[in-house]
Amino acid sequence: MSTDAAISALAQDAELRTWSLIVTIFGDLARAPGAEIPGPVLSAITGRIGVKPEAMRVALHRLRKDDWLTSRREGRVSHYLLTEAGRAESETATGRIYATRPATPERWHLLVAGPMDQAQRLEQDGALAARGYIAVAPGTWLGPGPAPAEVGAMLAFEGHPAAVPGWLRAELMPPALETAYARFADSLEAAIAALGAAAVSPLDRAVLRVLIVHGWRRLVLRHPDLPEAFFPESWTGPRTRRLVHGLLDRLGKPSVAEVSADLAEV
Amino acid sequence: MSTDAAISALAQDAELRTWSLIVTIFGDLARAPGAEIPGPVLSAITGRIGVKPEAMRVALHRLRKDDWLTSRREGRVSHYLLTEAGRAESETATGRIYATRPATPERWHLLVAGPMDQAQRLEQDGALAARGYIAVAPGTWLGPGPAPAEVGAMLAFEGHPAAVPGWLRAELMPPALETAYARFADSLEAAIAALGAAAVSPLDRAVLRVLIVHGWRRLVLRHPDLPEAFFPESWTGPRTRRLVHGLLDRLGKPSVAEVSADLAEV
Repeated sequence: MSTDAAISALAQDAELRTWSLIVTIFGDLARAPGAEIPGPVLSAITGRIGVKPEAMRVALHRLRKDDWLTSRREGRVSHYLLTEAGRAESETATGRIYATRPATPERWHLLVAGPMDQAQRLEQDGALAARGYIAVAPGTWLGPGPAPAEVGAMLAFEGHPAAVPGWLRAELMPPALETAYARFADSLEAAIAALGAAAVSPLDRAVLRVLIVHGWRRLVLRHPDLPEAFFPESWTGPRTRRLVHGLLDRLGKPSVAEVSADLAEV
Repeated sequence: MSTDAAISALAQDAELRTWSLIVTIFGDLARAPGAEIPGPVLSAITGRIGVKPEAMRVALHRLRKDDWLTSRREGRVSHYLLTEAGRAESETATGRIYATRPATPERWHLLVAGPMDQAQRLEQDGALAARGYIAVAPGTWLGPGPAPAEVGAMLAFEGHPAAVPGWLRAELMPPALETAYARFADSLEAAIAALGAAAVSPLDRAVLRVLIVHGWRRLVLRHPDLPEAFFPESWTGPRTRRLVHGLLDRLGKPSVAEVSADLAEV
């Protein structure tokens, strides 16, 4: 009962697109090369969150078509695993998702463009965003680390921010995202309270982990990875991050075999 | 003859507004508190450059009215000296004019403004320019030293420039000013060649110094005081500066009394 309440607390506000949930499941439970998840285990995890079998079939079809997942059949059971491309994308996001602290580069650089028209600036914005730059003003971008050797016709300025104003903090962390962080922190606290010190089955540990990682991933990947000084002082990000890691540690990570064995017992 | 040729070389391209020339004379020869220049010495220096007595009267009248100069009468001779205000302004410019090298701060800071309309930006531009900032892009300013503690709603970023692009160099040193530097360097070289190793009278030393300092002042005060890396590579500033200081050293600085005694001999 207490586990059900914890699952509801985490699932109620979550936007759970099935294919995205499956991506999170593989990222958390089967990211290692060659790691597989049997179809029944996938279905048990998503079913526990209320995903219908038909939605699962559609999502798995789509993920195979997009070269995220592949599968092999063993008797009547399909075993799913990430493709090389899927695994690479999963690994890229993993650093941000599981990091216990934000990026804290000591050096930064600003790039300042010369006079350009709107179209040129949009193009430049796109090119620099793809390289991880943050637009701090029209024609001015912030990037981590030292300035690259080749910056074209831009002024490159190396150093560190001495003061980050409110308007920039609000641009980097819009109010809607800040609110989402606070709500997720509340959900995590509700889940922690509901769980108490109860023993949790391997399946439910997997389910809870997936909901936690999925909710966190949807927050953390929606803003640039910057030290806390770049975000509003009212932002609950650090608290939310502590709750995420505390609860993941409390649950521990079940192996796919443990979850599978758990199903067989039911 | 050779001194005349040197004077012509330096005077030919010079824009010699009489009041401005007098400001240069006091800055070079009589900047010390209480230092005076007798009217006949002033007239001899400016006369040697071709300034008419009537133009001198008008200029001296204007400078007195503007509280730059004051005078006292001793018999039939007026003695002129800088007012406190005139001396203060002269001292301010002196650092730039006589510096043997450009400013070389190791630390700089950029200020980046948030979204603002055209009128706000113009106001901000004016306020920051008055405090010595250089606009490097709309809404982005460069200042020497560490960022001030209070920067209002601006992003402050401390460090150093890693790459200065051509468009910024050309903004800081427009082609017309770059050309003026090159022409003044040519004039200095012509003057040096014309002088050779000849002995120069105290009056002519004063006249030549005034032309050199005047020409140099009109260049150096027309752009911000920045390390050479901020200016076009083709800029002849460093060479021009060396020529200025070489020629000033070669001439030495005559005292007003020496120039005065020189007149008495004529």
